[in-house]
Amino acid sequence: MLTNRRDVQIQWGDCDPANIVYYPRYFAMFDDSTSSLFEAAGCSKRDIINVYGLVGIPMVDTRAKFYVPSSYGDWITIESRIEKFNRSSFEVTHKVTKGEALAIEAFETRVLVGRDPADPARLKSTAVPAEIIEKFMRG
Amino acid sequence: MLTNRRDVQIQWGDCDPANIVYYPRYFAMFDDSTSSLFEAAGCSKRDIINVYGLVGIPMVDTRAKFYVPSSYGDWITIESRIEKFNRSSFEVTHKVTKGEALAIEAFETRVLVGRDPADPARLKSTAVPAEIIEKFMRG
Amino acid sequence: MLTNRRDVQIQWGDCDPANIVYYPRYFAMFDDSTSSLFEAAGCSKRDIINVYGLVGIPMVDTRAKFYVPSSYGDWITIESRIEKFNRSSFEVTHKVTKGEALAIEAFETRVLVGRDPADPARLKSTAVPAEIIEKFMRG
Amino acid sequence: MLTNRRDVQIQWGDCDPANIVYYPRYFAMFDDSTSSLFEAAGCSKRDIINVYGLVGIPMVDTRAKFYVPSSYGDWITIESRIEKFNRSSFEVTHKVTKGEALAIEAFETRVLVGRDPADPARLKSTAVPAEIIEKFMRG
Repeated sequence: MLTNRRDVQIQWGDCDPANIVYYPRYFAMFDDSTSSLFEAAGCSKRDIINVYGLVGIPMVDTRAKFYVPSSYGDWITIESRIEKFNRSSFEVTHKVTKGEALAIEAFETRVLVGRDPADPARLKSTAVPAEIIEKFMRG
Repeated sequence: MLTNRRDVQIQWGDCDPANIVYYPRYFAMFDDSTSSLFEAAGCSKRDIINVYGLVGIPMVDTRAKFYVPSSYGDWITIESRIEKFNRSSFEVTHKVTKGEALAIEAFETRVLVGRDPADPARLKSTAVPAEIIEKFMRG
Repeated sequence: MLTNRRDVQIQWGDCDPANIVYYPRYFAMFDDSTSSLFEAAGCSKRDIINVYGLVGIPMVDTRAKFYVPSSYGDWITIESRIEKFNRSSFEVTHKVTKGEALAIEAFETRVLVGRDPADPARLKSTAVPAEIIEKFMRG
Repeated sequence: MLTNRRDVQIQWGDCDPANIVYYPRYFAMFDDSTSSLFEAAGCSKRDIINVYGLVGIPMVDTRAKFYVPSSYGDWITIESRIEKFNRSSFEVTHKVTKGEALAIEAFETRVLVGRDPADPARLKSTAVPAEIIEKFMRG
């Protein structure tokens, strides 16, 4: 399946008083990486929301293991891919490397959600459209 | 062991265009919750850093499962406790409830780190001082 | 006019490698402070959005002058008040003190906006309802 | 003087429930832009900290005027330059454009600070080294 790779430079505001990345910032980078992966597949999150009348692709389960810290000014590479599509969810992995070293391994499970027609204040999961899955298969 | 509970109101800036919490913000809330837990035990992160000459208590492994979304203005309760102390690491759980509902379950493994005497640019894990463990046992 | 005062403890993730608050975090605190001010007046941002069919109260102009830095664990007090209502905008000041010292002075001008009926993708400013202004006058 | 220009795509996590950028995120982008400007001048913030024994380049005064909102997926261009060097401070402007439109105008005044030799817990401003000023003049 399609793999997306992007280089990210650690910014001053990403780092804590120990001068290592404040870990919630990594999750923000991973969220951006999943967005980039969809854009690389030819179906940006914005398109998905507009075309299929959805409201987002929220997280249902995520885990990250941190092996090597990074500091202000460092460059890391984030390699992201969808491992598996389920009916209304899918699983993504992010592998972060810093030079040759494996720095972080993360996975996430997300769902496509729209408004519940019975109660628009509620969110409801939606089956992943087959044409979206195909775009990742081609990758 | 000591359990710390705090109520948090979801702020406008915590939420994404779907008007649900942008999940990296939950990790920031959990980081604050672990800090609060240490403060409740009578050894704030600031004390630990000053007294033991450390630089921080970074994350090595964290996972969160999201069951119920929250929106701007909602109140959630975060209940945090250390489940286990290892030699230089410890395990924390955060249970988030929204009213009666279990909204999120999270766990984290953290280490105490100082500067490596052989190379101050590097971080090195440190054994958890016995007197810190005792403070949580009393809770 | 109504003044709202709240105490905020500087968190680990608010601070940068110099162990002082990363200044964009202060603007997040000010945004929360303006929300608190509305809540104290008896008309939360959530109510305003629901009752008047608005989408938000975005910033049009903001300035902050930083006199005294704060670090992890410090407590600051943020005192916020609306200085003036204009037709569809209003002006807020935030005065931050740390102990006896004046730490930051900030002001902001915000507008009430709804969707433009002619093009719902666009935002359009709305006159501030008189009943909202009255709630702040009583303060 | 040297001008640095960079294109930034608005991310999902930059936006609030109104699907416009949560304004504190713009200040984070401006902080990154000032870092990029220094890097473009050949003296990264990391170099400055290491070479001159400083601890950071904190903000003393900043203002931003927001004319045109941006939403998830939009691209903006941030053009940054130092307008003036003072003894230990300097003034930066950031001009944000979205297509042809001027979207935001921001300015900031920053200082170079090191540790106070008399009390390392305190920060003390430092004269801007002449060789740093020269690097921006050449731009």
